Amino acid sequence: MRYGLVGSTGRMGQEIQKAFADHTLCMTVDAEKTWSDGTQPEVIVDFSNRSSLTNTVNLCVENGSALVIGTTGLNEDDFSMLRELGKDVPVVQSYNFSVGVNILKMILASYSKLLEDWDSEIVEIHHNKKKDAPSGTAIMLQDALQKPAVMHSLRMGGIPGDHSVIFANEGEVLSFNHRAISRAVFAYGALEAAEFARTANPGFYTFEEVLRCKLKK
Amino acid sequence: MRYGLVGSTGRMGQEIQKAFADHTLCMTVDAEKTWSDGTQPEVIVDFSNRSSLTNTVNLCVENGSALVIGTTGLNEDDFSMLRELGKDVPVVQSYNFSVGVNILKMILASYSKLLEDWDSEIVEIHHNKKKDAPSGTAIMLQDALQKPAVMHSLRMGGIPGDHSVIFANEGEVLSFNHRAISRAVFAYGALEAAEFARTANPGFYTFEEVLRCKLKK
Amino acid sequence: MRYGLVGSTGRMGQEIQKAFADHTLCMTVDAEKTWSDGTQPEVIVDFSNRSSLTNTVNLCVENGSALVIGTTGLNEDDFSMLRELGKDVPVVQSYNFSVGVNILKMILASYSKLLEDWDSEIVEIHHNKKKDAPSGTAIMLQDALQKPAVMHSLRMGGIPGDHSVIFANEGEVLSFNHRAISRAVFAYGALEAAEFARTANPGFYTFEEVLRCKLKK
Amino acid sequence: MRYGLVGSTGRMGQEIQKAFADHTLCMTVDAEKTWSDGTQPEVIVDFSNRSSLTNTVNLCVENGSALVIGTTGLNEDDFSMLRELGKDVPVVQSYNFSVGVNILKMILASYSKLLEDWDSEIVEIHHNKKKDAPSGTAIMLQDALQKPAVMHSLRMGGIPGDHSVIFANEGEVLSFNHRAISRAVFAYGALEAAEFARTANPGFYTFEEVLRCKLKK
Repeated sequence: MRYGLVGSTGRMGQEIQKAFADHTLCMTVDAEKTWSDGTQPEVIVDFSNRSSLTNTVNLCVENGSALVIGTTGLNEDDFSMLRELGKDVPVVQSYNFSVGVNILKMILASYSKLLEDWDSEIVEIHHNKKKDAPSGTAIMLQDALQKPAVMHSLRMGGIPGDHSVIFANEGEVLSFNHRAISRAVFAYGALEAAEFARTANPGFYTFEEVLRCKLKK
Repeated sequence: MRYGLVGSTGRMGQEIQKAFADHTLCMTVDAEKTWSDGTQPEVIVDFSNRSSLTNTVNLCVENGSALVIGTTGLNEDDFSMLRELGKDVPVVQSYNFSVGVNILKMILASYSKLLEDWDSEIVEIHHNKKKDAPSGTAIMLQDALQKPAVMHSLRMGGIPGDHSVIFANEGEVLSFNHRAISRAVFAYGALEAAEFARTANPGFYTFEEVLRCKLKK
Repeated sequence: MRYGLVGSTGRMGQEIQKAFADHTLCMTVDAEKTWSDGTQPEVIVDFSNRSSLTNTVNLCVENGSALVIGTTGLNEDDFSMLRELGKDVPVVQSYNFSVGVNILKMILASYSKLLEDWDSEIVEIHHNKKKDAPSGTAIMLQDALQKPAVMHSLRMGGIPGDHSVIFANEGEVLSFNHRAISRAVFAYGALEAAEFARTANPGFYTFEEVLRCKLKK
Repeated sequence: MRYGLVGSTGRMGQEIQKAFADHTLCMTVDAEKTWSDGTQPEVIVDFSNRSSLTNTVNLCVENGSALVIGTTGLNEDDFSMLRELGKDVPVVQSYNFSVGVNILKMILASYSKLLEDWDSEIVEIHHNKKKDAPSGTAIMLQDALQKPAVMHSLRMGGIPGDHSVIFANEGEVLSFNHRAISRAVFAYGALEAAEFARTANPGFYTFEEVLRCKLKK
């Protein structure tokens, strides 16, 4: 597929280019400059930051490109803009494009009612260059719980991303933990989302929904 | 309720007497001696070892007592004997009477199909006096998986019971962990099972089924 | 030995009485009342809270009793008062009377210089009734590091006390973890401190120093 | 520096070339073929397997090259051969070229006497293509303990390398954990060892000794 990449020079941009090696990069958008080979991308992938969002959405509208968006820290207006775009092209959005975290989210959504009398807290650890806290993934996981959980954010070294959802009562501790071995896992999730978005009907999809579709086949 | 206790002098026996403090201990069975106050127990609780099993089953038959059995390391003949007893009295059996482990078992039974392409292994850590390995709980958790997982048993200090079910693929690690803060948790689970068994119809029940019934109310 | 106990009805008070079972409790001091059998304690043990401190110190002065103090959240004035008392009787003070945490503290004091270029943070988890945060133990461990570390406090269920000191750089993560299996461990440490204090010269000692003395024999 | 690389096509070979990007690769040795630009390497780096060892040692003798060797699973004869080579050229050997594991080894060597009454076991987790078990690093860490510890090896997914040395007694659990975020950390350690070996006197050195020298400056 022909794809466009917003934030091609950053860490995630580098990983995405490796994961998409069998596909054709036809557009890059970075703070410093935009490049295009003149063709229209079938899918635009954006894992940069909120400040790029409006420009990314405009490019999708102009080119009729589907969008795979992994940017974290979005607000209500951003989500409205993405849902609006979803009326025209397929949009796949998630704060975490790994299969494991999305399975964890499904599990918490199904089972946290059984654990609603237990105390629950979330600990997430990321590399020291990650600016937002708590992580988008921690927010995703918290949304799946019955009640808000205190979230603790550690920023250390080069850690790609650890999340731990902990439940405890007087006699027991249950914890659900996820570790991204490297950022590559998110890039491969983005590839899956792009392959889905390329042929999907217009709509606003979460990566969890893309995975559910895949699992039914 | 009037209850009987097999293995009253061991660690679990002590914890069970504390948890059942509001009830009347009317029979104890230990390697060295058996004691009874002459009345029939409504429920007999046995968390001892396989060597007591036949005697325990006979006592239930003689006294018309329900049975709560937490003994680990049972074999096929033992299960047949317990199912046979279940035709006459309620029998609640589990290798782990904590709510958390049973919830974990339900989760693994529901979700391990999604993780069947991942590698999976189980690590359990117990106190250095525990003779059986792998633990009954590890076997319970492995039974919930799609395919057998290698099990690692650590025997150290006074650890009541830690279990970790780990899944990994090329890019991620997911782990589901349970810790018993103290043995008391199993004694309180036994109490719940006894309260269920006391009024249930004859049958062979797992503690998981007892919990499912409770959760529906 | 004859010993006095401040906070005899609380969780730690109960554990201390179990650990000191071979000794004679001759005085108890609780919010509601004080009791004495008329004899002078050789050692007073206080694991209650700051509000008892002045009274405890006075009792030591009046009775010539040594003091083992595990109360957390002390301030500079409290430490001055304890050092002053140490001129007359032996005083053993620590925020953590377990051997493992004190060994961890020694290790961090010796080796954190080698890790000073790494990021470091501390996570501690305690039961949901613990009022102070961060824990006294986390503060003890942080003091052993080269530079202040961010401390994260989780309050959940019945967890006796977990501490994790984590270091990370671009390529690696090192973590030093301690778990108290139950509060009993602190009571046994208090017993060791009391046996030391009973025959020591007046002075202000930390439990770490008591352990170092013991290890040299 | 001009360097030679044994096992240039494998995972570690790839990481080493990235880490040594500022240096000149003048020789590669792989199962299929050997290549040289005709010059003599100042240092040869070998992270392949035992079967290459004799050939690597011969190349060092012929070229007067120092050797940095990270191959695991060496036996007594291999060590004799390396010490013999060390009479002529500098040889730096380790089963683990990360700073963190070597610091952990130093800590265990210094402090395990204080923990000799505790139970101890080691758990290591590596990717599913790693053939040897237990890992060389687990063996390194076990050597630093007072008495042999049971070692548990998990082989799962793409995990670069996790090691956990656990101590427990009746009341507490202490664990010392190391995680390699990626294999790159070993390649950077190999670079440090090569920079040392390039100018060192002939001798057989461990990477721990190289680090100790560096830390004294």
